[in-house]
Amino acid sequence: MNSPVDFYFDFSSPYGYFASTRIEALAAEFDRTVAWHPILLGPIFKLVGAPPLIQMPMKGQYSLHDFTRTARLFDIPYVHPDRFPISTLSAARAMTWIDARHGPDKAVEFAHRVFDAFFARQQDVSNADVVMALGADVGIDPGQLADGIAQQTTKDELKSRIDAAIARNVFGSPFLFIDDEPFWGFDRFDYIRKWLGSRR
Amino acid sequence: MNSPVDFYFDFSSPYGYFASTRIEALAAEFDRTVAWHPILLGPIFKLVGAPPLIQMPMKGQYSLHDFTRTARLFDIPYVHPDRFPISTLSAARAMTWIDARHGPDKAVEFAHRVFDAFFARQQDVSNADVVMALGADVGIDPGQLADGIAQQTTKDELKSRIDAAIARNVFGSPFLFIDDEPFWGFDRFDYIRKWLGSRR
Repeated sequence: MNSPVDFYFDFSSPYGYFASTRIEALAAEFDRTVAWHPILLGPIFKLVGAPPLIQMPMKGQYSLHDFTRTARLFDIPYVHPDRFPISTLSAARAMTWIDARHGPDKAVEFAHRVFDAFFARQQDVSNADVVMALGADVGIDPGQLADGIAQQTTKDELKSRIDAAIARNVFGSPFLFIDDEPFWGFDRFDYIRKWLGSRR
Repeated sequence: MNSPVDFYFDFSSPYGYFASTRIEALAAEFDRTVAWHPILLGPIFKLVGAPPLIQMPMKGQYSLHDFTRTARLFDIPYVHPDRFPISTLSAARAMTWIDARHGPDKAVEFAHRVFDAFFARQQDVSNADVVMALGADVGIDPGQLADGIAQQTTKDELKSRIDAAIARNVFGSPFLFIDDEPFWGFDRFDYIRKWLGSRR
């Protein structure tokens, strides 16, 4: 039995979003499932000593151009969010709670909705009310989800997952592990195919 | 007539080296030639506000692993240099002078030698004597090359080329322009194929 592909992402990361639309197909090609791990890049970027991508001189401008170009080339719906980047704390906590309470399949269904809302439908997913509504779209009671996000156990669980990601040297989004081999970036998907193919 | 692919690189960049082994074939697929532009990442990284890749926490460690992995996957000879990164000022000036004096074909032949010496044969190409010897390998008189590197016009020419690269927002290596469309990174070569294919 192959181990799952570990997929780390921040809901505010365009390349994380692009990866989310292709990761399941990529994993399936190699008879693997995907373990989804929402993280927060803010604390990680502080450790790496890097500012958010689009705030970097030159690189920021290139990235903004590259987001829409990549979406177009890969046929992924994309409207660059008016507010960007945003805090994804509520969304990440919500996914963490849904995972614990309703299982990973429901959590992944929710994650797709969050990404789609933020990057294809101009919804501000930093807003907890928007997060509740997206939960409701996949059948989660908004009141229960609000309670779940507010629980200390949920907060602690997300924090410990992010600490575990940092301990694994996750420094960006998307960040993947396949049998402990690390891969950073959506532009590495073909490369991953090559790598997996070479091990067959 | 298609415009050439502009290929910017630092001789100390592993991904620049990998690109140098594939760029001509990539360009030829789309009936283009390549214009090679040696740059120095040091002053550019200062502008971007980024430390050299391998000095960054987490990212540095990943990169070191990725250099050898990439070389293996793409069948490119690679021995990670003992001293890394290094100053490539002499090599970049030498290429600039060879280009002016002996033409671009000879300059590109020299560039391949420099990359190969540094990344496949453990030669310290920050050393001007090593640079002269590599020039001699492609038929350049070492004394003339030494004089050429020392000329103020050569220094000015390289500096003005790097300023021109910065003005074009070149912030890494390899960095390519195809009809003014910017692409950063060796891992974007398949992506470039996709982009060029989509425009046919």
